[in-house]
Amino acid sequence: MSTHLLNELVSILGDRHVSSASTINPDDLHDESLHPEPRNPLAVVRPQSRDDVVALAKFAATHNIPITARGSGTGLSGGAKPVEGGIVLSFADMNHVISINTSDHVAVVQPGITLRELDAALLSTGLHYPVYPGELSGSLGGNINTNAGGMRAVRHGVTRQHVLGLEVVLANGDVLRTGGPVVKSSSGYDLTQLIVGSEGTLGLVTEITLKLSPRFAHSATVLVPYSTLEEVTSTVPAIISAGLQPSILEYLDILTMSSVTTRANLELGVPQAVSERALAYLVIVLETRTREQLDRDIEDLGTLVLASGALDVFVLPDGSGQRLIEAREQAFWVAKEAGAHEVIDVVVPRSSVPTYLASIATLAATYESFIAGCGHVGDGNVHMSVFQPDLEKREAFLLALFTLGVEMGGAISGEHGIGRDKQKPFLVLTDEVSLAVQRRIKSVFDPQNILNPYRLTDERPLP
Amino acid sequence: MSTHLLNELVSILGDRHVSSASTINPDDLHDESLHPEPRNPLAVVRPQSRDDVVALAKFAATHNIPITARGSGTGLSGGAKPVEGGIVLSFADMNHVISINTSDHVAVVQPGITLRELDAALLSTGLHYPVYPGELSGSLGGNINTNAGGMRAVRHGVTRQHVLGLEVVLANGDVLRTGGPVVKSSSGYDLTQLIVGSEGTLGLVTEITLKLSPRFAHSATVLVPYSTLEEVTSTVPAIISAGLQPSILEYLDILTMSSVTTRANLELGVPQAVSERALAYLVIVLETRTREQLDRDIEDLGTLVLASGALDVFVLPDGSGQRLIEAREQAFWVAKEAGAHEVIDVVVPRSSVPTYLASIATLAATYESFIAGCGHVGDGNVHMSVFQPDLEKREAFLLALFTLGVEMGGAISGEHGIGRDKQKPFLVLTDEVSLAVQRRIKSVFDPQNILNPYRLTDERPLP
Repeated sequence: MSTHLLNELVSILGDRHVSSASTINPDDLHDESLHPEPRNPLAVVRPQSRDDVVALAKFAATHNIPITARGSGTGLSGGAKPVEGGIVLSFADMNHVISINTSDHVAVVQPGITLRELDAALLSTGLHYPVYPGELSGSLGGNINTNAGGMRAVRHGVTRQHVLGLEVVLANGDVLRTGGPVVKSSSGYDLTQLIVGSEGTLGLVTEITLKLSPRFAHSATVLVPYSTLEEVTSTVPAIISAGLQPSILEYLDILTMSSVTTRANLELGVPQAVSERALAYLVIVLETRTREQLDRDIEDLGTLVLASGALDVFVLPDGSGQRLIEAREQAFWVAKEAGAHEVIDVVVPRSSVPTYLASIATLAATYESFIAGCGHVGDGNVHMSVFQPDLEKREAFLLALFTLGVEMGGAISGEHGIGRDKQKPFLVLTDEVSLAVQRRIKSVFDPQNILNPYRLTDERPLP
Repeated sequence: MSTHLLNELVSILGDRHVSSASTINPDDLHDESLHPEPRNPLAVVRPQSRDDVVALAKFAATHNIPITARGSGTGLSGGAKPVEGGIVLSFADMNHVISINTSDHVAVVQPGITLRELDAALLSTGLHYPVYPGELSGSLGGNINTNAGGMRAVRHGVTRQHVLGLEVVLANGDVLRTGGPVVKSSSGYDLTQLIVGSEGTLGLVTEITLKLSPRFAHSATVLVPYSTLEEVTSTVPAIISAGLQPSILEYLDILTMSSVTTRANLELGVPQAVSERALAYLVIVLETRTREQLDRDIEDLGTLVLASGALDVFVLPDGSGQRLIEAREQAFWVAKEAGAHEVIDVVVPRSSVPTYLASIATLAATYESFIAGCGHVGDGNVHMSVFQPDLEKREAFLLALFTLGVEMGGAISGEHGIGRDKQKPFLVLTDEVSLAVQRRIKSVFDPQNILNPYRLTDERPLP
């Protein structure tokens, strides 16, 4: 049976683009979830074109074989874990820039392109794709499927605000085109926005039309130590209200600050007298069109944070400012190396961050667990590393962390997605009406349950 | 039969909130479509709460009676035209601010509140809802249903970028809650974004969670005359690329400029030697945090536009700048008074505006019609007043105008919506795969076709 199917796949894609059994690259069988669930797929396939994807969708529909799509495998929630006997559809080879229009500020790309490759392609244009999720080796297709955010979302918004249109191969092989190179439309249901964030369960994205923005000419990174976390978080609305439009507005607890700077071998020049009293840090990046405005913004920011209880203000030299941001982006790897058992990214209303952080400290004690954190505090997106080796205790603790966030008006995940790893709490915490609508929408797009099954609303155990 | 039904409605809502026959206010029977289609509904009902809306939905489902929801009736596409024998559900009384959170920058409102009422409620907070569609008497519920845009979308985006969550009564009376007071989420399908722009066909929005933004302290209105429209439109990408972030970037052809300023009795002080040579105008509003930055931005903008062929640059005094913007917002009324037979708002890629405008001039000649225009040129959103009394000729001309826009990568409507008036071209120009998906989504939400039927994908004639 499986030989017959493999022969059919080879006849569709050619020998070079189908791997099976021992020829599979092990890297194609997992993402960065801390909980790998090893499975043996029928094959890993690498389509070269939309037509290949159409043929694969028809093949999968005919034989009723699940498809797990993957970009570069940087997801943190197990969204790309393969299904036993299924097809892993890698977009690694569909990674081209199709067009860049510097008048419309629009790029059309294939889903396998990484953020780093796109940024390089745009460098000479003066434009950029302003969403910079932490991991630049992530693919745009993956970013679309989780509606990725990142540190710059506080100013620029998340992925969905920058996706203007999509080409999507549906489960039956039909090609759906949504949106286009325009920034607004009121002409029917917005299917683009429905696909963004759907974690590969509604269609296979084969082409992406992105809105680009001008790069700013001037920037500065400002580091602000505080002696309490409450002061950090209560300063945030004031910074936004002042109209300073920070591009980055991050908090790091001292544990995270210390571990990311140590790992990056980064000395920020904070005097010991200050660092001894600091319990948390705010990292703020300002970006402006003119040097004068940058100086003025830095000055006004400094006045504002000192009035809000900051211990001091440090405008970092360009080099170390950039390196601090890069080090912060490595926080996941720091957590992984430190043996964290789970990384999560609950989002709560911005003003609820202090209460949330205080409550989770109490919860950690209750569940005899340990927690360290940092986050996109301008967005209320709290990133936590959870340490609790016992599975049962950990699941209970995680459910408590998610429940608290949802009760405060937030959501389980701000940007990582639900994937496999957060499916249980997602099913518990999403109300029945919403789940029912989401399930019916899934069946509109994929009645056979071929596309990334066993995630989101599909509660069957992963075969 | 109808007496029995009316009695049941009265028992649900109370006598004061149900009108029928001669007690109906005629204003509740139309929107601002230029093509009224008079119909006699069973009743106009004014729910006072979500629970009233739930009861109405159940009533309508039981008796299979269509519901046409309406806000304040400022729509331009006939989305709120009643159905013969149906229910007109007016949200006029559900117009309250439920909460404003100045730390989270979030407001929760009912759908009947107008933009003007919301703006007044926010004035003292230093925050605003930055989407200003031209008509401030429009309701937020209506804005959500058409994904309204307006002049400020070039900087701030359209309605959907500012809607964080919704409470929606579904056709069966279930209450769906989507999103919440957070600016990002990756936790299941984004049903908020699916409802926005759905023109009342998927659910009855009863509560809206909006993202607010800080108001800028300083602003200036700059008027730039050009001797060709091509120069106007080719300047636009340069202004955006320069990072000037205009809040408004409008073009007005001389006919529109002359008629809106005459109607507003507005003298802008453009010397005759300049106005004689001007064929089109760019109106640019700059907004900044500091006065210094405003001066610098004005200076850099002036240099840029003069280098791009502008005849001159006028920084308008505050009063007349504001009045020009208000006058421009009245362009629809000018067109209506001038006897326009249709107003449309095709959107095309920004750089295609010159080609589009040149082509429609040719088309107007071919179809022996007349056309005048202005538009949100930063967004490629071209607003046109079409003069052609003959219905058959006009429909052919309109289809040609829409087809051209769609072929250029754009859409039939940037912000007005499809409603009844543009349904025929919508059905012709939307591809079969997309139409099929949209129809299946409609049936997920509203299998009985109760909610705003005979619009969008439902091609039956309006009874």
